[in-house]
Amino acid sequence: MEAQRCIDLNADLGEGFGVWRMTDDDAMLKIVTSASIACGFHAGDPETMARCFAAAKANGVTVGAHVAFPDLPGFGRRALPMTPPEIERTVAYQLGAAQALARYADYRISFVKAHGALANLAESDAKIADAIAGAVARVDPALTLLAIARSEQVSAGARAGLRVVEEAFADRAYTEEGRLAPRRDAGAVIEDIAAVVSRVKRMLEAGALLTQGGALLPTPIRSVCVHGDTLQAVAMARALRAALEAEGYSLAPFAPAC
Amino acid sequence: MEAQRCIDLNADLGEGFGVWRMTDDDAMLKIVTSASIACGFHAGDPETMARCFAAAKANGVTVGAHVAFPDLPGFGRRALPMTPPEIERTVAYQLGAAQALARYADYRISFVKAHGALANLAESDAKIADAIAGAVARVDPALTLLAIARSEQVSAGARAGLRVVEEAFADRAYTEEGRLAPRRDAGAVIEDIAAVVSRVKRMLEAGALLTQGGALLPTPIRSVCVHGDTLQAVAMARALRAALEAEGYSLAPFAPAC
Amino acid sequence: MEAQRCIDLNADLGEGFGVWRMTDDDAMLKIVTSASIACGFHAGDPETMARCFAAAKANGVTVGAHVAFPDLPGFGRRALPMTPPEIERTVAYQLGAAQALARYADYRISFVKAHGALANLAESDAKIADAIAGAVARVDPALTLLAIARSEQVSAGARAGLRVVEEAFADRAYTEEGRLAPRRDAGAVIEDIAAVVSRVKRMLEAGALLTQGGALLPTPIRSVCVHGDTLQAVAMARALRAALEAEGYSLAPFAPAC
Amino acid sequence: MEAQRCIDLNADLGEGFGVWRMTDDDAMLKIVTSASIACGFHAGDPETMARCFAAAKANGVTVGAHVAFPDLPGFGRRALPMTPPEIERTVAYQLGAAQALARYADYRISFVKAHGALANLAESDAKIADAIAGAVARVDPALTLLAIARSEQVSAGARAGLRVVEEAFADRAYTEEGRLAPRRDAGAVIEDIAAVVSRVKRMLEAGALLTQGGALLPTPIRSVCVHGDTLQAVAMARALRAALEAEGYSLAPFAPAC
Repeated sequence: MEAQRCIDLNADLGEGFGVWRMTDDDAMLKIVTSASIACGFHAGDPETMARCFAAAKANGVTVGAHVAFPDLPGFGRRALPMTPPEIERTVAYQLGAAQALARYADYRISFVKAHGALANLAESDAKIADAIAGAVARVDPALTLLAIARSEQVSAGARAGLRVVEEAFADRAYTEEGRLAPRRDAGAVIEDIAAVVSRVKRMLEAGALLTQGGALLPTPIRSVCVHGDTLQAVAMARALRAALEAEGYSLAPFAPAC
Repeated sequence: MEAQRCIDLNADLGEGFGVWRMTDDDAMLKIVTSASIACGFHAGDPETMARCFAAAKANGVTVGAHVAFPDLPGFGRRALPMTPPEIERTVAYQLGAAQALARYADYRISFVKAHGALANLAESDAKIADAIAGAVARVDPALTLLAIARSEQVSAGARAGLRVVEEAFADRAYTEEGRLAPRRDAGAVIEDIAAVVSRVKRMLEAGALLTQGGALLPTPIRSVCVHGDTLQAVAMARALRAALEAEGYSLAPFAPAC
Repeated sequence: MEAQRCIDLNADLGEGFGVWRMTDDDAMLKIVTSASIACGFHAGDPETMARCFAAAKANGVTVGAHVAFPDLPGFGRRALPMTPPEIERTVAYQLGAAQALARYADYRISFVKAHGALANLAESDAKIADAIAGAVARVDPALTLLAIARSEQVSAGARAGLRVVEEAFADRAYTEEGRLAPRRDAGAVIEDIAAVVSRVKRMLEAGALLTQGGALLPTPIRSVCVHGDTLQAVAMARALRAALEAEGYSLAPFAPAC
Repeated sequence: MEAQRCIDLNADLGEGFGVWRMTDDDAMLKIVTSASIACGFHAGDPETMARCFAAAKANGVTVGAHVAFPDLPGFGRRALPMTPPEIERTVAYQLGAAQALARYADYRISFVKAHGALANLAESDAKIADAIAGAVARVDPALTLLAIARSEQVSAGARAGLRVVEEAFADRAYTEEGRLAPRRDAGAVIEDIAAVVSRVKRMLEAGALLTQGGALLPTPIRSVCVHGDTLQAVAMARALRAALEAEGYSLAPFAPAC
């Protein structure tokens, strides 16, 4: 079946602001097929966004808004005390900013993805997942929701009437419940490139998440997320892309169509 | 001529963020016909914006994005060291955020207006005026530019292919060159309500700005700006609206059509 | 007994930054005997601090550092996800900034008080109370800790070897456990001036906190806190001061000595 | 003459905040003899500061407050529109925060140094140089001012009654007037390590700044500044230290005594 052999490779990019920089956007945009661009709340600023959207367009990379808690120092990795309605409006704000900077670069965003602590909360908290999906539906229902596979985000997106695409993380371990193992746990982030490549191939073949215990949890994986903010990000993304192509996968954005 | 008797009354609203508040948005939105809403850079946040857009819709008030330098402490009144391209992208960002929060409130923004030091620089600096107009044209050319009457903003808007509407300030003195007298100058801000009402009537009758020296500088005034952030803002706006109605003016938004 | 008839009246002041303002510092500094000055994290900036310390010195008002979570939009009223060691260093930072601005105004701070969510957490969380007291002890053990009466702050201050002074809140209701009733509860903030005056007199007479149920919880009250950030703050502080003086109390700062 | 053979090597460190990081503080603190620590305005936060002061103490490195314009995105490299009195109070604030975090780490700061655009303005603007020196004198006159050699900072420090130490920059070119060539100019930042080592040796030998044109401008250099925020910062600092030691210089902090 051809459709199964088509996969998207996404990374979180534009993670810098002012003089501060975390991701090598130019290098990564030559490897991935989709990019979630920081919108100024956990990282990103108008300069970074304009630059990333222009470079993504030049490389044929599909782009999305990477929405987060307003927390530059904490990089959006801390759960801030915000209510679901406050989260909804915060997401709307970032989404609009991303749409405008994409249009400024004569481009369009195709999807929205939650970042960091916001994404983690929305894995299992339906109210927060609904807040994110609700913001997207109210601002632009044509956008796809790029969701953590098997999370509450998936059903929230469906409830809001959005197209939902599920992503698996290349280098993050999954619990037996199919949740991302917390970053602070040993083994939660897999650093060995060969191990990462091998587990991604296994997950795509099986159409399932691979848990720490070795179980396979079926889920329709349409995109694989590689990190952009680690020292070996570029090397890992390159290796993964090469391995998938060698395996016969066709790499293409999940949106507008894979 | 009927068309001449139709005028818009605008105020800069949504000037608060978190617990901080400067404008009485609910009261003002019952008086004005257009409102420029702060976008989070000199004031404003997702909560304030969502609330203002919803209230404006309920009151039939046309809304715009009030774009500014990123400077919450200084309220956008300080000229920051930013290049025209940086300004262009900063404006695009704020504009997009306002569009999204308006859509979130099931509404639409119709115009863009520059605030504070950004507006003042764009009175006479064509490059900065072009940066603002350029951002609007690239993000959404259907938006109207609400410009300081007789300023570089007017020609920049025209160069960018935008519809431009010129506004006169109800309570600000004009120099002989038709520039806003700097706030720090004595007499730059007129506080006497009767004086404000009388000068606005005179400017509208003459179709001209009234200078400190008493000269009349012809300009097509389609909107009058009243302040929202002073102690007597509501009283002045109410008095001005009553006086204009008594004079036979029909108050209506300049956009989409007066 | 003379010592019992001596009381301090304190307010939280300097609650503004840049153009934003919440407290009428000049008026309040003519009424209170001690002032906790915001240090730039929930409010305050170098300008506000310098101005407040100079005015406090001119009025003979004793000053302290009002330390808080770093949260200008939320005014320090939201509990941020920070560990006790992070809180300790955040308190040290603010304390040092206050010491320097006081010295800049040729004055000295005499005490430290926690604000908002930080103070509320430290009412019952010993680890957070220890973090605050620990920061004070490490930076300047000669400073007094102004603590919520009967809270964990009192014992934490003692553990850290600090002089501790307990304060009662003039207009805040207490639960039967002697905790501040949460602001969101009905009746938690008492707005009737006469009621406030009468309950303060009763608490001072009894040397006890007065609970919502009418119980008296003995505690050595050395200072009474009036709010500075409400519409009637000045009127209430003035009424309370007059009533206490009429009652024969001598108003004087608790530090260096009452 | 022994005193001439004694030199201080300083670097600007603690340049990070939250998750963002620019300097390898641990490596640099094993090489330099003095460190200017960012105070939270262009970089730095309570965590970074506490960590740096503790590590500096452990390595016997003398520390100072590195004060700057409040501009995290711009890293303090943009001249902000602030008056000299505002600058004075901003410096006082940062200085106090640094003093407190140093005491928190059971250490003391010995000096103050201006960073980025603030330092550049204070090279030739006497009012701004006086504002910086004035803040130091009012907050703690026992602190040394680490000044750009031959700049207005030197005379401002003297006017304020401070001990002043002049520093030469290892990798920055000087104009014929003895000013730092602007960073944007070609050749303003010298990247070749051998060239840097050789010019530093020449400046120390001559007791003079070496201009781009080859002139020597006499000045009592007591400290040499190496950058901490470049890719080769550690390599350059190490090479310079080794070369100076090989040349017979004794490396020691300029404060409290060389």
